[in-house]
Amino acid sequence: MNIQSLLELNSLFPESKYVQLATVDKNNQPSVRTVVFREFVQSTSDIIIHTDIRSEKMRHLSHCRNVQICWYFSQSREQFRISGDVEMVDSNNESLRHLRVAQWQKLSKAAKSAYFAGHPGAALPLDDVNQHSVHTQNDFSEVSNKFVLLLVRPHQVDHLDLNTNPHTRIASKLENNFWQEKRLNP
Amino acid sequence: MNIQSLLELNSLFPESKYVQLATVDKNNQPSVRTVVFREFVQSTSDIIIHTDIRSEKMRHLSHCRNVQICWYFSQSREQFRISGDVEMVDSNNESLRHLRVAQWQKLSKAAKSAYFAGHPGAALPLDDVNQHSVHTQNDFSEVSNKFVLLLVRPHQVDHLDLNTNPHTRIASKLENNFWQEKRLNP
Repeated sequence: MNIQSLLELNSLFPESKYVQLATVDKNNQPSVRTVVFREFVQSTSDIIIHTDIRSEKMRHLSHCRNVQICWYFSQSREQFRISGDVEMVDSNNESLRHLRVAQWQKLSKAAKSAYFAGHPGAALPLDDVNQHSVHTQNDFSEVSNKFVLLLVRPHQVDHLDLNTNPHTRIASKLENNFWQEKRLNP
Repeated sequence: MNIQSLLELNSLFPESKYVQLATVDKNNQPSVRTVVFREFVQSTSDIIIHTDIRSEKMRHLSHCRNVQICWYFSQSREQFRISGDVEMVDSNNESLRHLRVAQWQKLSKAAKSAYFAGHPGAALPLDDVNQHSVHTQNDFSEVSNKFVLLLVRPHQVDHLDLNTNPHTRIASKLENNFWQEKRLNP
């Protein structure tokens, strides 16, 4: 089974919607956080992730567009480490506007409201619990200009299968639009 | 509750033994993989991770000792992003030899055998399934010279609690041996 089919198969498990996204900051220090895998862009291996244009990861991506995603499937005991580069789809992107609007429409009201709330990562008084309250009457039909899609385009995948003994490890690399596989020592 | 107590409490859940460790390679590209949290070094916040001296992450650490760990607790719906620097305890380290030996003794025979097997990440024929077989008669009482402890010493923690609405985010920073907390917009 090829790498794309494996990922698609695994992504169907509900537990599989969380992945870890690693970036480097402007001082070349490593950074990693859990993000939600939304879906693949239709007919491609591009992974859709949502973010706020004011987020820390956006600052990292403006410095370096290469990322690595770690996707661990506890159900199947497989880990995929996906290296790729990121296209950022913000409110200025006309050609992918339909994709951004479609993703916005799938969000809950609570998720949408965060894009109208205070600056992510800004300092708050320790007892402040009201920073979202201004927008609870909004219906959020308009896409927030803070809402950005990250499209992660894989060019290398390291696949580790923990079900075999010894474990099985396959490195796949995209070369001229074909995935070339190489078996590695685990 | 302080950050150390929170981590200790959460680390007791069996599902909590997997964390994601992010490093940067020599080209300053991001890298992330799932590793096993072993335990804290007694009476400290130092996190013990095992690795093979021949592993990719060892090459990354020789370039940059700063790492970030992403620790997501699905039970409590909390994420900790832990920035720290790494001390590598290999066979040349005399002062922490007791710690390295004690960690070795806790490993299963299968886990120990990997440190006597082929080079991690080396290419294998796609049908090779016998690379561990040479060592199955060994009792592994001697610590492999490939076995290395990584001690991750936290100096900054970003704690996100998804149970509240809006989410609660606290940044903690170690300053003069005290954790200073700051509440952030999520």
